[in-house]
This record gives sequence, structure tokens and C-alpha cells, in this order.
Amino acid sequence: MTGFVSLVGAGPGDPELLTVRAVRRLAEADLVLYDALVSPETLDLAPAAHRFLVGKRAGRPSVAQAAINRLLIASARRGKRVVRLKCGDPFVLGRGGEEGLALAEAGIPFEVVPGLTTAVAAPALSGIPVTHRGVASGFAVVSGHAASAYRPVLETLAPNSLTLVVLMGLGSLTDLSALLRRRGWRPATPAAICRAAGTPGADTWIGTLEGLAAAPARGDAPGTVVIGDVVTVGAALAAALFPPTPAEAASRAV
Amino acid sequence: MTGFVSLVGAGPGDPELLTVRAVRRLAEADLVLYDALVSPETLDLAPAAHRFLVGKRAGRPSVAQAAINRLLIASARRGKRVVRLKCGDPFVLGRGGEEGLALAEAGIPFEVVPGLTTAVAAPALSGIPVTHRGVASGFAVVSGHAASAYRPVLETLAPNSLTLVVLMGLGSLTDLSALLRRRGWRPATPAAICRAAGTPGADTWIGTLEGLAAAPARGDAPGTVVIGDVVTVGAALAAALFPPTPAEAASRAV
Repeated sequence: MTGFVSLVGAGPGDPELLTVRAVRRLAEADLVLYDALVSPETLDLAPAAHRFLVGKRAGRPSVAQAAINRLLIASARRGKRVVRLKCGDPFVLGRGGEEGLALAEAGIPFEVVPGLTTAVAAPALSGIPVTHRGVASGFAVVSGHAASAYRPVLETLAPNSLTLVVLMGLGSLTDLSALLRRRGWRPATPAAICRAAGTPGADTWIGTLEGLAAAPARGDAPGTVVIGDVVTVGAALAAALFPPTPAEAASRAV
Repeated sequence: MTGFVSLVGAGPGDPELLTVRAVRRLAEADLVLYDALVSPETLDLAPAAHRFLVGKRAGRPSVAQAAINRLLIASARRGKRVVRLKCGDPFVLGRGGEEGLALAEAGIPFEVVPGLTTAVAAPALSGIPVTHRGVASGFAVVSGHAASAYRPVLETLAPNSLTLVVLMGLGSLTDLSALLRRRGWRPATPAAICRAAGTPGADTWIGTLEGLAAAPARGDAPGTVVIGDVVTVGAALAAALFPPTPAEAASRAV
């Protein structure tokens, strides 16, 4: 009797922003393998499951991807209902594809339960729409974790042609800001950092592309960087947005 | 006593892919203003609400945006709990920002309840990850509805530099395919159309950028176009994916 693996997106952090299907899978799970940033409230939705932290966190040891794959396969072969719970969406910079390939090669049936990607939800919770008529008709999402990954994309993206969203980029702000300005992006392009979105400690920094490098750090809270004129729209929306989103800093640009 | 407006994303169509908060808002709503592609099963989650179709649908008349804004404001002023229910995510090509600005200008408190954007969820439900290590480290999302909107973006996007997702582009396949090839994208770049994602009638066409223009039409079902090598990853994943996603056509490229 082979089990089943669900690659589940946990969204930005707030358990109310999980999908109904994600909640159902957690409630029925025998085993949950979760990322480091998954909130305790989300894990509480799987009270009957064995829960193991396997996720990566900047600067800390983590379970190797190959070991996660082996654990998924072995658990499913023992007949377990396994939830691989990932922050945001499993297929947006989450290595869900790699896990899916390992499962497919092992002949383990699996499903994808998409989650709210932080790339869209974190700005939205700060009031920032990634697209806005007359301002941006598209957006691009890149990982800011490794320069080797984002440089080839950002060096070929036309300056200020669409909204740019950078995930996992808080450690690369200086390089990102310099690279984009060197490429011709306006230094005064509005920019925002949406930190700890979907958690009680959420806040929003608003400034400019030029100011990004000097944006104040805040411990190891995760953050989503948004660069583009939509940030100005977000600042206008924030006045009426509930719950209110305090901005730590506002530059002349917005 | 002023009411409250929730700009709610309905996700790709399956009511199980709504967020817990979206379900809660629908259950408590006095009034639901919904887009044309919102499923009947989703509307059933708001049994106590007055429900009005205001959304746009290709080729059919719709309520003008200004009229929707006025209705949102007037209903909130009468103390109603209003849900503006939009396909996918309200802030991804959904004019949620425009509605939010109108509400902010009128002093109406509102919130954003992000939904699964079809740009990520439709490919995911077909097994296609928009990013995959070593294949694509980022993705771009554009609207294919109007050439005036997508051309400036696509004409500046470096060929095959990231995964390209086109929403509302089924009427522009010939132009999109020609434009990208003229720009230097490989004609054999894998491409997919994920149609009616999240509904019982979902299917996936898999082919190439060159073949996009000749992809078979299917009534007025909505579709998400994905262009990039991640489509090949998706084809490999599909073998083990549950529920299975039948591909109507497969070209030599995948």
C-alpha cells in the first residue's frame, strides 16, 4: 500500500491565508515535513501528525535536499499521508519541482496544493498591487539569494519596464540596488520591503531603489522587495487599508 | 455606521483553493460583487449575501469600472459587509488597485485578501513549476489581453531569460508567438496552455512557442500560457501527478 505526498504551499505565514485544501491535508496528515519559516499556528493544524523541520534558513544547517527526497519517498512507501509544507508556493523558488521529480522517478503519486506566493501576497498585504493599469502591466519575480541566479535575469531586464519582485533578497540589497542603477533603472524608483508579511510582526519599509542599500535591517525576519512605481500606488492605498501597515520610512519619492 | 469592503481573490476556480479567510468573508458577506469566471460552487459559500455579477468577459458587456467603484462605496456607506470577489488574485491584473484607490479616496476602510494567482496556480495544477533550479530562476507575468500592454514588456525581455506567463492571452497567441520569435526566443521553446485550471474541465496543451499559434481553441474557456523550459519539467512531473492532467497535444520539444 503506497501512501501519498502533498506538496503544500503554506502562504506568507498567517494560517487564515492557507487554502481550504491545505488545511484539510494538514488535518489528515500522518507526517509533515516543514520549512523553517512555517508558523507554529500553521503546524497546529496538523495535531495528529509527526512534524519534522527540514527547511533551510539563512546561515543555519538544514537537511540536505536529497535527504528530504529520500524521507518523502520512504514515508510514502510505508503508506503514510505525507505533507511537504513549504513557505509561499511550492513551485515558486521552493524546489517543489525537484521534490516532484524525485517522487515521479520513484513512482510515488503526489499532488501540488498551490499556496499564496509571497511574491504577490506580501506586497498585497502592504497594499501594493504588483500590477496597476497605466503604471505596470506585468511583473517579474526573481530570487535574490544568489547573485549567480539573479544577475543573468536582472542584467537583461529592461529598466523600469515592469514591477520587479525579489524574494530572499535581504542579504543582497546593496548589490541589487547597484546592479539595477547601473543597468539604467531610475535611482528614485519607488521601492518597498515587506517584512514578516502575514505575521503579527509585519511591517513595510518604503523608500527608493537608491535607498534600498541603506534600508534598516530587522533581525532575520524574511522580506519581499518590490521595485517599481506600483509602490506609490500602495502608499496611496495604505491610508484606508485594514489592518493598517506602518511604514518605517518614507522617502521623497512617494 | 460605515461598512467594510474586502477585495478577495477567488483563486483559479476550485472552491477548495480559496483561502480560509476568503471562505469566512463570503460566509459573513451582505453583498458579493463577482467576476464572470467565479465558479457557482464558490458563490455557494455566500448563501446569505446578495450576489451580483459585475465582471468582464471577453466579447460581452460588463459593468463599467466606475459603476463598480460607486456600488462598492455606496454599499459600504449603507453599512454593508461587501466582498469584491475576483478571479485569481485581486492585485494581479485584476484592477484591485483601482478599486482600492476609489475606496481610499472615499474614506471607506477595506482589506485585501490575496488569492492564488492563476499565473502560478494554473501551471502548478498542470505540474509545471514556474521556477526550477538550473532551468529558470525567475518568471515574468504579463497580460495578453491588449498588445499595447504586452508589447512594451515583451519587446524588452531578453529571449529565454526567464519563464514567461501570459494571462488572458488566448486571443493573442499568433501575435505573441510571432513577437517572441522575432525577438529571438527559440521557436522550439516548450510552451503550455493550462485551460480551465482548478475546474473539472481542466486540460493542458503542451507544445512549442512556434506551435502556440496553431494550438487548438476550446470555446471560451480561460487559459494560462506558459513559455519556457520549465514546461519540460512539468511534462516529466505529470507522470506521477494526481489528479492526472491529460495533455491534448505533445510536440517533439517535450
